[in-house]
Amino acid sequence: MKQLIRVGMLGIGNIGRGTWQALAMNHDRILESTGLDIEIVKILNRHPDKDRGIDIPKEKYTAEVGDILDNPEIDIVVELIGGIEPATEYMARALSNGKSVVTANKAAIAANGRYLVDLAQQNHVLIRCEAAVAGGIPILTSLTTALLSNSFSEVHGILNGTTNYILTQMTEYGNDYAQVLKEAQNKGFAEADPAADVEGYDAANKLSILMSIIFGAEVSPEDIPTRGITTIAREDIEYSLNAGYRIKLLASAKKGKKGLYANVEPVLIPAGHPLAAVSNEFNAVFVKGNAVDDLMFYGRGAGPLPTGSAVLGDIIGIARKLEKDSAYDIVPQLRYDSGVKFIGEGASKYYVRMTVTDRPGVLGRITTTFGQFGVSVEAVRQEAPYESGKERVAALIFRIFEVERPLLYYVLNKILNENIIKSIDNIMRIED
Amino acid sequence: MKQLIRVGMLGIGNIGRGTWQALAMNHDRILESTGLDIEIVKILNRHPDKDRGIDIPKEKYTAEVGDILDNPEIDIVVELIGGIEPATEYMARALSNGKSVVTANKAAIAANGRYLVDLAQQNHVLIRCEAAVAGGIPILTSLTTALLSNSFSEVHGILNGTTNYILTQMTEYGNDYAQVLKEAQNKGFAEADPAADVEGYDAANKLSILMSIIFGAEVSPEDIPTRGITTIAREDIEYSLNAGYRIKLLASAKKGKKGLYANVEPVLIPAGHPLAAVSNEFNAVFVKGNAVDDLMFYGRGAGPLPTGSAVLGDIIGIARKLEKDSAYDIVPQLRYDSGVKFIGEGASKYYVRMTVTDRPGVLGRITTTFGQFGVSVEAVRQEAPYESGKERVAALIFRIFEVERPLLYYVLNKILNENIIKSIDNIMRIED
Repeated sequence: MKQLIRVGMLGIGNIGRGTWQALAMNHDRILESTGLDIEIVKILNRHPDKDRGIDIPKEKYTAEVGDILDNPEIDIVVELIGGIEPATEYMARALSNGKSVVTANKAAIAANGRYLVDLAQQNHVLIRCEAAVAGGIPILTSLTTALLSNSFSEVHGILNGTTNYILTQMTEYGNDYAQVLKEAQNKGFAEADPAADVEGYDAANKLSILMSIIFGAEVSPEDIPTRGITTIAREDIEYSLNAGYRIKLLASAKKGKKGLYANVEPVLIPAGHPLAAVSNEFNAVFVKGNAVDDLMFYGRGAGPLPTGSAVLGDIIGIARKLEKDSAYDIVPQLRYDSGVKFIGEGASKYYVRMTVTDRPGVLGRITTTFGQFGVSVEAVRQEAPYESGKERVAALIFRIFEVERPLLYYVLNKILNENIIKSIDNIMRIED
Repeated sequence: MKQLIRVGMLGIGNIGRGTWQALAMNHDRILESTGLDIEIVKILNRHPDKDRGIDIPKEKYTAEVGDILDNPEIDIVVELIGGIEPATEYMARALSNGKSVVTANKAAIAANGRYLVDLAQQNHVLIRCEAAVAGGIPILTSLTTALLSNSFSEVHGILNGTTNYILTQMTEYGNDYAQVLKEAQNKGFAEADPAADVEGYDAANKLSILMSIIFGAEVSPEDIPTRGITTIAREDIEYSLNAGYRIKLLASAKKGKKGLYANVEPVLIPAGHPLAAVSNEFNAVFVKGNAVDDLMFYGRGAGPLPTGSAVLGDIIGIARKLEKDSAYDIVPQLRYDSGVKFIGEGASKYYVRMTVTDRPGVLGRITTTFGQFGVSVEAVRQEAPYESGKERVAALIFRIFEVERPLLYYVLNKILNENIIKSIDNIMRIED
């Protein structure tokens, strides 16, 4: 039983080309094993004469978005133009027209996921966004199918390949952040304006989507405390290596007694943990379920073909459900539970690196101040002193026992303002 | 829209209890997000008075298998008695009676998968076996849903938790195989008769199932060249550590130009590879797709709750499809392609450890013999000589370039038979 599935695609950039190629390579296998004859019938392309390095018949192209969104011959609209608008508007129009939607757009789903899911349900169609989180890794599909047999208490993701590449290179070659960033830009692994990656915003968008699926939480990426990797120095990398850790930009969310904790920031992870072995441009998502316990998915978080694999997987998933009107197949894909309370970050162990003048009594004054406010020091290490201007200074690296971040920052600020130390150079969570 | 799903369970051992508990913990969440009201209505239990450490109402128990297999009120039969027979007979009867089947039985599926899948298709019902491979890891579901957008060229699995636990302990504490096995048995991590695990048979069963899903290949576990971990010595572990490798019992299958290669054996894996970070009782499955590229799934391969999570995931997956008669939903679950040719193992790099008498000329005679047969040596290392009986001996460790195993064995046998060396102590593949 052969079933024709007609797809309209908005945009033909990297992911669009990857989707086209993934389908070209695997069309016949998909047809053979599922009966689905998937065809991309129209592609929105405002520059049809630009060479895309791929062999797409010109008659597939249209410059009019209505040729896809309002076309009664199209079953599924794949949105790959990116950005919040007009992507959201286009997806809404497709859903209202009774078409299912596949998107790789993390920003639009993070910003307008609930609106689009509600719209899909009202119109008895489906919306899927596997490619928006961790590229080719089938994490969203797994969470909403096989893993429905679990309730999850936490999720930790290495969700941005650019920053993971930079941190890996800093770790392996001992180079500075600025130097590695430049190399990454030259190699095309980082954008000319790297802010969305290195400041953690990209990871925050993806964490927001994961939180909606895992916890039913509607948390805007802007509300997730987010810090990137721009402050990671060679000293931090060296300390982490010597102490048996790796530094990773981790997007984490946890269910606590009072509500949900979440943040995006560089974290020290034990070297033996599977997340520590996720190197270079690879991504990974680690979850803990009440039945399955620890589970990790590892793979390519970007790139035309891996992301195209996820887009095509969503097309197949929707196509296999197209003939029935089944509301509950939509709900788990992105579900929002208004009872879930988001309450910022939780308590954690911390790594603090500071610079002090090399003279007696400094360490005692610091630890006394920590102690006054109930901040417990697990370990401290003093690096070799060196000359800086007219004085000798040294780096102190503290491991702090579980503490709420606001309290830790309050005490550190106090120590800094009382001129006990010269500077606070880095603060990172430690995951033990 | 609430839909009642009535499940009959054959057996209430570890996995049965895990399934019961996973459902008890997550029933309400599943109902809320899918509309499925799953109830285990009958359990085959021939010793209803035995304390299972779990609170199951006695009226659920039956000693008559027909109360489940022939019960018109039951939608899905979960087979958890293990072994090839009578499990296959029971599953066949359930399928013939129009019931879908979920099983965790790797031996029965590896032996009779095609028969059972054909029977399911004839009866328009479904059969699933996620729990049979890598416990809680949703690898089969992912391969047959989200990852249908790929053709896969290779699969490598750490599929047996007992052997991985033993190898990890040998690596971390430098202990001997026999010593660690004994500890593992005392802790309940290894059976009193450990053969199925340590000889690799358990992993071969699981690889056979993976090969059917990934390649459509019908390969009996008995036909997969299989070697366990019983010959791994402390010297092998030490060499691998110093050379930047970890030894793992790897179940591998690859698509070659002439057909499929497969085997189960201890392999040297580079320490930076994500499979090398899979420690103790954890399992992992690594696949390479033509679109998604490298992908790895990591999690608990055994244990009541993780395995119960997989069983329950299959129940949900079937229940969500129950209302429609859709043949193609069955096919990808286990599909057999008679055009696929299985041709044993392929060429590989090898690690060879041997013992020689410590006298001049031995190394030259070995390498000359290797050279005569076209076996290339990549590197050789001689360990410190020691007294053994009346003579001084030493260990030689060779890294051999890509070679077919039969040729390597032929040449090694020749070297041994000509008394150039005293013994061949270990041979392992190297994955670079």
